[in-house]
Amino acid sequence: MLYQNLANDLLANIEQGLYRPGERLPSVRQLARQRGVSVSTVVSAYQHLETTGQVTAREKSGIYVAIPAQRQIEAPEPSRGSQPTQLQMSDTIARVFAQNRYPDRMHFDLAVPAPSFQPAAQLKAAANRVVRHHFNDSLTLYPSPGDGELRRLIAQRMLACGCQVDAQEIVITNGCQEALLISLQALTQPGDVVAVETPCYYGFLQALESLGLTVVSIATDPVTGMDVQALADDLQRWPIRVCLCSPSYSNPTGACMTEAAKQQLVDLAHRHDFHLIEDDIFGELAHGEDHLKSQQDAFRREQEQRPRPLRAFDRHGRVIYCSSFSKSLSPGLRLGWVAAGEHRLRVMERQRASTTGTSTLPQLQVRDYLKSGHFDKHLSRVRRQYRINIELALSVVAEAFPEGTHATQPQGGFVLWISLPKSAPDALTLLDRAQPEGVCFVPGQVFGLQGLESCLRISVAQPWTEELEGALRILGRLAGDLS
Amino acid sequence: MLYQNLANDLLANIEQGLYRPGERLPSVRQLARQRGVSVSTVVSAYQHLETTGQVTAREKSGIYVAIPAQRQIEAPEPSRGSQPTQLQMSDTIARVFAQNRYPDRMHFDLAVPAPSFQPAAQLKAAANRVVRHHFNDSLTLYPSPGDGELRRLIAQRMLACGCQVDAQEIVITNGCQEALLISLQALTQPGDVVAVETPCYYGFLQALESLGLTVVSIATDPVTGMDVQALADDLQRWPIRVCLCSPSYSNPTGACMTEAAKQQLVDLAHRHDFHLIEDDIFGELAHGEDHLKSQQDAFRREQEQRPRPLRAFDRHGRVIYCSSFSKSLSPGLRLGWVAAGEHRLRVMERQRASTTGTSTLPQLQVRDYLKSGHFDKHLSRVRRQYRINIELALSVVAEAFPEGTHATQPQGGFVLWISLPKSAPDALTLLDRAQPEGVCFVPGQVFGLQGLESCLRISVAQPWTEELEGALRILGRLAGDLS
Repeated sequence: MLYQNLANDLLANIEQGLYRPGERLPSVRQLARQRGVSVSTVVSAYQHLETTGQVTAREKSGIYVAIPAQRQIEAPEPSRGSQPTQLQMSDTIARVFAQNRYPDRMHFDLAVPAPSFQPAAQLKAAANRVVRHHFNDSLTLYPSPGDGELRRLIAQRMLACGCQVDAQEIVITNGCQEALLISLQALTQPGDVVAVETPCYYGFLQALESLGLTVVSIATDPVTGMDVQALADDLQRWPIRVCLCSPSYSNPTGACMTEAAKQQLVDLAHRHDFHLIEDDIFGELAHGEDHLKSQQDAFRREQEQRPRPLRAFDRHGRVIYCSSFSKSLSPGLRLGWVAAGEHRLRVMERQRASTTGTSTLPQLQVRDYLKSGHFDKHLSRVRRQYRINIELALSVVAEAFPEGTHATQPQGGFVLWISLPKSAPDALTLLDRAQPEGVCFVPGQVFGLQGLESCLRISVAQPWTEELEGALRILGRLAGDLS
Repeated sequence: MLYQNLANDLLANIEQGLYRPGERLPSVRQLARQRGVSVSTVVSAYQHLETTGQVTAREKSGIYVAIPAQRQIEAPEPSRGSQPTQLQMSDTIARVFAQNRYPDRMHFDLAVPAPSFQPAAQLKAAANRVVRHHFNDSLTLYPSPGDGELRRLIAQRMLACGCQVDAQEIVITNGCQEALLISLQALTQPGDVVAVETPCYYGFLQALESLGLTVVSIATDPVTGMDVQALADDLQRWPIRVCLCSPSYSNPTGACMTEAAKQQLVDLAHRHDFHLIEDDIFGELAHGEDHLKSQQDAFRREQEQRPRPLRAFDRHGRVIYCSSFSKSLSPGLRLGWVAAGEHRLRVMERQRASTTGTSTLPQLQVRDYLKSGHFDKHLSRVRRQYRINIELALSVVAEAFPEGTHATQPQGGFVLWISLPKSAPDALTLLDRAQPEGVCFVPGQVFGLQGLESCLRISVAQPWTEELEGALRILGRLAGDLS
């Protein structure tokens, strides 16, 4: 049979690594032309390979080499909370990042999209238009709260995911880190108690330490996020003023709270008179689904897929919302925002004291880019790529990491949280061993106070190459060797 | 006499306002052509007008309409210091700036160069080159300490004014405000005592308040700056950890410390084991002199004119140097730096906790601009303009403000400090009266804790027009009416 021969050829190509797992195969027409066979032969060959599980067909997208079926990886155990503590972690965090700062290594540590996962051509076109037609605007200081039109466009996007915001309450910031910092400053005094998830983004801990705040860790599930009941219990014991959290695709775990849990959390804040500072930086990177019936369904499904922020459940002004374009667009922009509600003036005051505001040219560039209407298309492209990369990484973890390794399977974003078996060395030791082999990652210790010694964060926001896959295998081997 | 007729014609033109005080007159050749007379007639006419004081000849620059001789304005009295205080000024500061935020007014409040005092064409060319040839670099995060090449170019400039710095110790910041904030954070804990001049830049006070620091004001002369002996006395009484100061063209007074006083201050810091955080943001804007013999002299004189920073006198690592391109180039860039010496790592740590770093595109744009070699030419152009604007403003103050008004006559920068007679209303009241007449300025109260009620800061970093002059006259009349 002709189609059988073609299927065998393709299989050989896949085994030789000419086409790699997760990669798109030639289209039916391309392949027919390339091999000099009929379209129907190609269709039959692909159907055969799909039946045997070697390729995956994705509606409106193409035929992909299947990612090998994984040994079932369980999610890591939920974490326990800890008592209020004054942090002293910034030295450890600085040391880890100094250690990782080498250009010629494989970087699983950088949780920012590589240039090929950014809309380079469209951002360049936007920069060109601004420089050509509005350059003189860039000479003007746009002090806090920043450009009005950019704030309006951001408010539109927030409305589209269910947040009732007003452009007036939006303050443009130097990335999400400044957004979080000035929000914390607006709501707290040194010594106040702030609740965080365990693990949580190390940038939270740096900000909390630098403001002299006391931190209490709340029990957290690596899949469903913060345990709201545990927070409710802790509220009886400690005078928690603010809860700083990442409800949608947390960094480092990728955990996403259910809508019910989000509603409970907001209600709890209202009942117990504390505030929520929400970091939604990965919210736009929901992986979504491919097997959709029509364009219209696809649109609706994407809307459903992008998790609603905490802020969408807030009817009492309890949530300060922070985000940025660093993960969804480009980290070079350093452009974020706060939707600060009634705390707007205090947040602006804190920004004036810390940076005055943000650079004008990037504000104009992003304003122009958003108006060009390419953002959603870009997002659907990178969401698909991040999902594939997460799947590929998980298949390597299943194969190459020691028995008893657990990992999260995030439904959004591009970071993965791996927990090594008890017998394995702690993550800082593993990092010391991995670096001479040219592999960087972020050890669990920097994401919280305790109980994270056997964990690591892996970021896959970069093209999946043989070298990258090899580096992850090296990490797995080292973790196993050392167990 | 032919030249006499020409001189009379020119005088009439000046009186009609065709040529305004401080403006350049046509060159000798231009005028000869315009009026159909010989070059020697024009030379004689100009010489005659120079003798009678109606025009001023400036070597290598041209003939200018003389600025009317001023009633002698005395400098304001030196301020007294005050005891350590916990600040609560940010509400007042925010209120003043909210009040001033109207586009259709005359803005003496904005201490940033207007677009026409920025090198717009060259900055645009730099932006164009970056977008065209290095756009993909702008997609990359340049986290703290920022781009290496930009830091090297900044270190070169600092070397040229006598500072022994290393590019390694330079950290690129979101404007000078972030530079000051993270330097303070690196050196202090909440509650520590920090010394400042009186008056001092309100941004200092916002930063100090937001960090919970205790402030002690040091007696300060509005011409020669901080009284180093007064600081020495205060060191006996209070545990001062840091002195935050603007030794070269202070904002708001324009005061400049002598080199001897700078040396004494640095020695004092070494002897008494405290640190100096130096704000040198106006240092590049020395007005300099025009009547120079030759190009080589001009170069040497300009070098001499640009005051040496405190950091140039520091042999023991006592000075953290902060500056930015906001006053010298463009405020829209929000690009500053710290030369942090041995405190480099701590400063970087603080920056990571507050903003991670600065936007990449403006870093690349300024790097390219600095390499293009136009900066010094731009500086000598705007320095001349700022000197003329300061002179023009002072001549209006002498004419239109009430008897007993004092003002500084800064030798650099573009802000002026006016002290009204005791009989005049306080500056906040004056602002309330001036705003309905469309005039904005910054009242003295925001620059310090006490004794500044009768003072105002006037910024003249904008083209000097009839409207602007009229607005300053209105201010003088209001100050007089209300006395």
